[in-house]
Amino acid sequence: MAVPDKHILLMDGPDSKGLIYHVTGVLFRHGLNIIHNDEYVSPSGRFFMRTEFEAGSVSFDSAALLNELQTTIPQSGSSTESEVKTAHSSGITFRLNPKRKKNILVMVTKEHHCLGELLIRYAFDELDADILAVVSNYNILQPLVSKFGIPFHYISHEGKTREEHEEAILRTLAIYEPEYLVLAKYMRVLTAGFVDQFPNRIVNIHHSFLPAFVGANPYRQAYERGVKIIGATAHFVNNDLDEGPIIAQNVKEVDHRHTAVDMATEGKDVEKIVLSQALKLVFNDRVFISGNRAIVL
Amino acid sequence: MAVPDKHILLMDGPDSKGLIYHVTGVLFRHGLNIIHNDEYVSPSGRFFMRTEFEAGSVSFDSAALLNELQTTIPQSGSSTESEVKTAHSSGITFRLNPKRKKNILVMVTKEHHCLGELLIRYAFDELDADILAVVSNYNILQPLVSKFGIPFHYISHEGKTREEHEEAILRTLAIYEPEYLVLAKYMRVLTAGFVDQFPNRIVNIHHSFLPAFVGANPYRQAYERGVKIIGATAHFVNNDLDEGPIIAQNVKEVDHRHTAVDMATEGKDVEKIVLSQALKLVFNDRVFISGNRAIVL
Amino acid sequence: MAVPDKHILLMDGPDSKGLIYHVTGVLFRHGLNIIHNDEYVSPSGRFFMRTEFEAGSVSFDSAALLNELQTTIPQSGSSTESEVKTAHSSGITFRLNPKRKKNILVMVTKEHHCLGELLIRYAFDELDADILAVVSNYNILQPLVSKFGIPFHYISHEGKTREEHEEAILRTLAIYEPEYLVLAKYMRVLTAGFVDQFPNRIVNIHHSFLPAFVGANPYRQAYERGVKIIGATAHFVNNDLDEGPIIAQNVKEVDHRHTAVDMATEGKDVEKIVLSQALKLVFNDRVFISGNRAIVL
Amino acid sequence: MAVPDKHILLMDGPDSKGLIYHVTGVLFRHGLNIIHNDEYVSPSGRFFMRTEFEAGSVSFDSAALLNELQTTIPQSGSSTESEVKTAHSSGITFRLNPKRKKNILVMVTKEHHCLGELLIRYAFDELDADILAVVSNYNILQPLVSKFGIPFHYISHEGKTREEHEEAILRTLAIYEPEYLVLAKYMRVLTAGFVDQFPNRIVNIHHSFLPAFVGANPYRQAYERGVKIIGATAHFVNNDLDEGPIIAQNVKEVDHRHTAVDMATEGKDVEKIVLSQALKLVFNDRVFISGNRAIVL
Repeated sequence: MAVPDKHILLMDGPDSKGLIYHVTGVLFRHGLNIIHNDEYVSPSGRFFMRTEFEAGSVSFDSAALLNELQTTIPQSGSSTESEVKTAHSSGITFRLNPKRKKNILVMVTKEHHCLGELLIRYAFDELDADILAVVSNYNILQPLVSKFGIPFHYISHEGKTREEHEEAILRTLAIYEPEYLVLAKYMRVLTAGFVDQFPNRIVNIHHSFLPAFVGANPYRQAYERGVKIIGATAHFVNNDLDEGPIIAQNVKEVDHRHTAVDMATEGKDVEKIVLSQALKLVFNDRVFISGNRAIVL
Repeated sequence: MAVPDKHILLMDGPDSKGLIYHVTGVLFRHGLNIIHNDEYVSPSGRFFMRTEFEAGSVSFDSAALLNELQTTIPQSGSSTESEVKTAHSSGITFRLNPKRKKNILVMVTKEHHCLGELLIRYAFDELDADILAVVSNYNILQPLVSKFGIPFHYISHEGKTREEHEEAILRTLAIYEPEYLVLAKYMRVLTAGFVDQFPNRIVNIHHSFLPAFVGANPYRQAYERGVKIIGATAHFVNNDLDEGPIIAQNVKEVDHRHTAVDMATEGKDVEKIVLSQALKLVFNDRVFISGNRAIVL
Repeated sequence: MAVPDKHILLMDGPDSKGLIYHVTGVLFRHGLNIIHNDEYVSPSGRFFMRTEFEAGSVSFDSAALLNELQTTIPQSGSSTESEVKTAHSSGITFRLNPKRKKNILVMVTKEHHCLGELLIRYAFDELDADILAVVSNYNILQPLVSKFGIPFHYISHEGKTREEHEEAILRTLAIYEPEYLVLAKYMRVLTAGFVDQFPNRIVNIHHSFLPAFVGANPYRQAYERGVKIIGATAHFVNNDLDEGPIIAQNVKEVDHRHTAVDMATEGKDVEKIVLSQALKLVFNDRVFISGNRAIVL
Repeated sequence: MAVPDKHILLMDGPDSKGLIYHVTGVLFRHGLNIIHNDEYVSPSGRFFMRTEFEAGSVSFDSAALLNELQTTIPQSGSSTESEVKTAHSSGITFRLNPKRKKNILVMVTKEHHCLGELLIRYAFDELDADILAVVSNYNILQPLVSKFGIPFHYISHEGKTREEHEEAILRTLAIYEPEYLVLAKYMRVLTAGFVDQFPNRIVNIHHSFLPAFVGANPYRQAYERGVKIIGATAHFVNNDLDEGPIIAQNVKEVDHRHTAVDMATEGKDVEKIVLSQALKLVFNDRVFISGNRAIVL
């Protein structure tokens, strides 16, 4: 098995002078080549950096590299390089991973457009992820999923409490151990208990331009408000409905001739593309969470 | 003085078979040439039509034409042309006006970008309106307005109750009798008593993609929610804050690097263009109000 | 078998006063209800109208209705209704069809994204068309097509002259007699002899914002020109490469970081959505051709 | 006079390992705080970096800093820090400037929309530049310019050869010595001899989505081609007409109802905003030229 040649270093913590210098120096001294480096300092002084590098012919020990990065941070305020501090004492987090596809599980209800988009991309290796299985509370989309040879789990919510239903889903998830759950038009609200088990690992597509029109029937709400533009929002799911960090949004012009049904039809094209774009960012480790904001590097 | 050659007929009422036929027939028999005709039937069965026509060498009596239109509507359900009904009994409203520029008054607070846009357009006869005067609760924009030779009325709100302040504004409005009030970043909420005097005649620009971020500091709200797109909304003002019929909206992509101040700066370009586009529609009699929705024909 | 209840009347010819009146009158007298009517007069004086109506409980004879429409056009310049002319003498064309799905054949080469989009839409009855078969000069996409139970014809161009290859395709087309050919990333230029057999019946998706970057490798061209926006264009195919009437276009922002390959990847999302939108317009009889321009009503 | 606290370092040359490390290290050792750093490596291996930093309470010598940056570049391929090379031997260019407003001269012909936009922004200190003067080959816009107290030079081309006309313009330019020329709808082609005197210092707004519709009457061309989207392009001017590096582009949807005149009217809003956005990038030293491509950092 080939050793992956590309690696992603993620760094997140309080800003201080010298952080870019520190990381680029360690990589330089190891002979590692930075392909792309992007950093951001928030108005509140938090530093985020994503560094993509390749090893080429250089062999390196990930654990040792990470340790070096964590223990030789230059001391802010000092202009000598001998005074250093550690990531731990600085509140800085480093993550270092080879660049690779993620394992995901997709949850749906009745609508096919987002799922179909993901399946086609997956079939042609464009998803940056492997779809381990699809879970639905209806069996309507089973024929579509079966075309692509992916396990489909029909877990009806009928006759179950919300908790019982989620328990059943969790038992299925335990089989696959996905890194991410993708809610590709899964139309049921998840409990806090469920969401807490997948912190920043559930991506949802909401069919409105959040924060406009949270909750049910956003296109009906949009029609009644008489908006001239509709939209879709891909976001992480946290405990508050439709309130998690926004990863990507897009919009489409409508006019008074669009009924709520027309808006829903047109909106599907926006939803599926936005979801795909957001997943591409997430699966390539380009999204940091900062409070309720998503930093995309 | 030249008789205006273009005329706009606006029709609004319950839908029934034969309405387009009726209007186009009356105009045809008078030898009037339809330049553009656009109609819309709402899902609830309301019919809207805007007919722009030119008389050319034909002379016609507006009042007589309007009377004919109102009294010879074919009977729905009847297939003979002899059975007619009246606009009154049908609940249909006709309005017939020569195409002409509107008289407007602009209200502002401190920001110049929307006002500047309107002044430049007005100076080059691109506004489809005459700006009679500018009213502001600050005197900051007086130098800009004076460049264009337009009366500027500084009516401070300081030391006045809201009602007293509006009284003072109303006294100034009484001088000019504008057909429309344009709130080009007028940052004070108007009372219901004030708004009621100008039904569907006040156009506001709100610096968000309504209904997201109503009220104060929408860019601050947008920043904190971490949206990836900002927007602006031009709408009629009614009694509920930021709740009137939406005329036009537009958006602009942002990312996590935009502070609330950056969003405000970028948003200005959207605001001024959206306001101008909305005003063009309103001043050309292209906007019908249907409940809380604006029908743009 | 149910009689289709919705009908589409298309009218196209030199403009004269009374044409809307004429059509709406005939339909009114037959008790037919207009659902949507849209008309357009070109700057050169050509009139286009699309009238969608429903019969409801009214029964009518299509041929008789068409004949009546064609023979009772009011005389322009006359204000009496007794003087009429015929469609033939007026140069006006009427077409009257029940609203129904079209039969199409899709041609592809190697890329799957547009084809996948069409197949998913077709599988869920969202295409307003039946895909009779897929023809390709490669067999790469056979597995995808076979998932959806649609005939796939692999007609290689290898070892054949262009004419021989097209002959082979035409023999396959003869089996299916499609109303439209959809070139969903079919990467070979068709001869005039081929195209002439399907006038205004071939829809192509070109992966650039035409007329920029005609011909091969548009994303490579776009990269080298350093554009900040890429696009896609759906158009009818005529004898000149990438020169037929444009039905729909859309764009996407890029920046200097996008390589030609990145642009191609991002562009796919635009291509497939634009093609689908254009096909929806064409299959709903909403597109008129006027010289090299497409009128969409 | 206050010493400007923000500084911009621009770096441009062949890529090699350690360049980010080098620059961030020099700045770190001087106690200078990086506010924003952005870099790009082109597919052909050219490295571009823009580093914005602030000195705060630290005093530094610009010339010495620049010299240090230029003479201590780590040797690529070496993993020790003692082996260094110079900017000169490496083909790397460094530029270090305080962040400040630019001095510009605006050239126009008859149209006011771009000029008006620039004047309003300038009047409210939003242009990141000082407009020293406006030059025009017509005197139509003199009244507008005079409102803002800026010198207006009417230099007619009538009765002059192209060279004589440009000579007259150059004599006026010599008075002001602007850093940038902004062609805000200056509708005459400049000779190579003129352009060569302002390499990468002339910004033009072209009223099409380049490379579509170069040359005269792009909206007429767009109408005749039947495009569904129009656009505008801000670019540097070089010797080939409408062929210089593109800085910014934007687009707007149109349909068959837009005449060439309508497109021109709608296009003005796009033109003026795109020009302003491009100028903001240029005046903030965010644009590198790489062949015919503009790198915006």
